[in-house]
Amino acid sequence: MSTRAKIIEALAAAGETPVSGHDLADALGISRNAVWKHIEALRERGYVIESTHARGYRLMSAPDSLTPDAVGAHLATKWLGRNLICHDITGSTNDDAGRLAREGAVEGTVVLADAQTAGRGRLGRDWVSRPRLNLYASLLLRPAIAPADAPQLSLVAGVAVADALEREGIEAGIKWPNDVLIDGRKVCGVLTEIEAEADMVGSVVVGVGVNLNSVIGDFPEELHDRATSIRMATGRMVDRASFAATLLECFELAYERWREHGFAELKGDWERRSVLIGKPVEVAAASASAQGICIGIDSDGALLLKGDGDEVRRVIAGDVTLVGGYDR
Amino acid sequence: MSTRAKIIEALAAAGETPVSGHDLADALGISRNAVWKHIEALRERGYVIESTHARGYRLMSAPDSLTPDAVGAHLATKWLGRNLICHDITGSTNDDAGRLAREGAVEGTVVLADAQTAGRGRLGRDWVSRPRLNLYASLLLRPAIAPADAPQLSLVAGVAVADALEREGIEAGIKWPNDVLIDGRKVCGVLTEIEAEADMVGSVVVGVGVNLNSVIGDFPEELHDRATSIRMATGRMVDRASFAATLLECFELAYERWREHGFAELKGDWERRSVLIGKPVEVAAASASAQGICIGIDSDGALLLKGDGDEVRRVIAGDVTLVGGYDR
Repeated sequence: MSTRAKIIEALAAAGETPVSGHDLADALGISRNAVWKHIEALRERGYVIESTHARGYRLMSAPDSLTPDAVGAHLATKWLGRNLICHDITGSTNDDAGRLAREGAVEGTVVLADAQTAGRGRLGRDWVSRPRLNLYASLLLRPAIAPADAPQLSLVAGVAVADALEREGIEAGIKWPNDVLIDGRKVCGVLTEIEAEADMVGSVVVGVGVNLNSVIGDFPEELHDRATSIRMATGRMVDRASFAATLLECFELAYERWREHGFAELKGDWERRSVLIGKPVEVAAASASAQGICIGIDSDGALLLKGDGDEVRRVIAGDVTLVGGYDR
Repeated sequence: MSTRAKIIEALAAAGETPVSGHDLADALGISRNAVWKHIEALRERGYVIESTHARGYRLMSAPDSLTPDAVGAHLATKWLGRNLICHDITGSTNDDAGRLAREGAVEGTVVLADAQTAGRGRLGRDWVSRPRLNLYASLLLRPAIAPADAPQLSLVAGVAVADALEREGIEAGIKWPNDVLIDGRKVCGVLTEIEAEADMVGSVVVGVGVNLNSVIGDFPEELHDRATSIRMATGRMVDRASFAATLLECFELAYERWREHGFAELKGDWERRSVLIGKPVEVAAASASAQGICIGIDSDGALLLKGDGDEVRRVIAGDVTLVGGYDR
C-alpha cells in the first residue's frame, strides 16, 4: 500500500476523530512535513481533509473518482491490482488492458475506469457504462495454459464476483458461463479475451462489469426486467473503491486456487450458486443449439446437459436460456 | 487487380517488346491520357518505364520495394491480399496485422514489409529480417473456430508455403509444427497468433517469413548450419512480389479447403512433406517432454508419437528435434 493510501486508510478508520500529524508521521515512519505534503497531494486529488492546528486531520469526503490511492487504501491482495491504472473515462478497459499486455505489462495489472465510451460485453454486445456509478475493471493475467482452457477464467471470475457480493451480505446466483445474478437479474457480466500464439496463451484479460449504484432508469428500456444493481437490490449505495478492492481480493484467492489445483477446485463454489442446475435449459450456439436438464458442470467448466434419454452432453460455448424463466 | 497492376502485368508480359498506349487503353477500357497518367504514377513509385512516341511503353525495371501494384500485378487470389498494406520498414508485420484486426480490418487483409526491426518467431524468439531480401508477410483471417483449433492454421500455412515452393520447382519438407525446410535447412517459419473471446476466435494472424534471397552471411552464425534461402538452395534470385503473390494464392487455396472440409482434407499434403514420419523424435514442451517414432499427424493436426510399447501419444504443442539430425 502506498504511503498516501495508508494515510487515507488511517483517516477513514478514525472517522470523526481527528488524527494528529505527529501520530501519522510516527505510524508511517516519515516526517510531519512529509505527512503534510501527502495531505496536500490528496487534496489536489479531490480528498476533502479538514485540518486544525491543535487536533490534526479529519477526512471529510473522498473524491468521486476511482484512484489508485482510494482503491489502494482497501486493497489486501498480494499481486493483483498492485499495478493499478485508473481512468476517468476510456473507450474500453479491456482494450486498455490488452494494449498494456502487448507492451509487456506484468500479470496482475488492473485497469479501472469511472466510465467507458465503448464498453463491450460478450459477442461484441454493448455494455452500458454510465459514469461513476458502477465498476468497470479489466484484469491482466498471464497463466501458462492452452487457449482451450481460457474459458475457465470466466467461471473463476463468476465465483470471485459472487464471493465479493457475499462479503457485502448479498446472495448471488451464477448463470453459465458469464453472468452473475441477484434475484434472477443480471448484476455482473464478464468478458474474457485472450491473445495467444497458436498453442500457448500470452495474456488473458478478464473484464468485469458490476452494476453497483445504477438505478433502473440508468439502463436501456429493453433491460429493465433483466438488469439490477447492488443498490437496486439492497437500497444501499456502494463505495466503488472499497468494492473494487474486495473484488480483486476475491479474484486473487479464486485464481490462485484455480492455478494451483485446476477448475475442479472451484467447481463446488460455482455449482452452489448455479441458477441452472436441475432445470430445463436451452443453449444457442454458433453452430447448433441444445436442450436438456442442466446437471452441473464438469471439471473443465463445460456445461452438462441431460437429454431425453440418459445421455449427457457437454456444452463448451453458447448462450443459455432457462426454459420458463428465472425464479425470483 | 488495379488498373495500375494490370499495366505492369501487360508490360512485364510483353518483355522487350514495347506496348503502345493505344493498345493499353483499349485493353483496359480507359483513355490514352489515363494510361499516361498511370505510367507517370508508376514512375513516381520507382518503375523505370521507357516510352518512345512511335512504339510505346517498355518496362525496364521494377522498384526494389514491395508495393501493392507490384504484388497485384501477379495476384490471382479471390480475397486474400486484396486489401494489401506494404511497408518499407516496420517493427513486426504480425503486430501491424493484429492492430488492423482490432480496428476491424476485413478477412484477407495482408501486411508485407521490406524489412522488420522487431521480427518475431515462435515463443518470442527473434526472426532475422534483413531489408529487401526476403518475404515477411502477415495474413489476417477470421475463421469461426474455437481457439483450440487455431494451431491447425500453422499447418495450413506450412502446406501453402510448400505448395508455393513446389511451383518454383523446389521440393520442400515440413517439420511439425511450423517449419518449412529445403534439404533439411529451415527456409520458412510461421508464427500464428490469435485474439479470442474466451470460446471464440475473433482474428488469427498468420505470420510467414520466407528466406528468398539471403546468403549465408545474412544469418547470424549460430544459424549457419540450419538456415537456408531459395537463392542458397537453387542459385536463383527470386522476385519477391511474384513469390508473395504465389504464396497468397497457395494459401487461399489451402485455407478454403481447410475451412470447408477441416484439416483432414490437407493431412495427406502435409504428411507427404513431413521430414519426421517414421523417424525417432524428441518433443520438448513447456510441461513435459516426449519421445517416440513419429507416425504422422491426426485429423486435428496433433503429432502422433509411437512409444516403446504400442501406445500412440498425441502431442499438441512443443519443439521437435529429430534424433540423429536431418537427412540431407
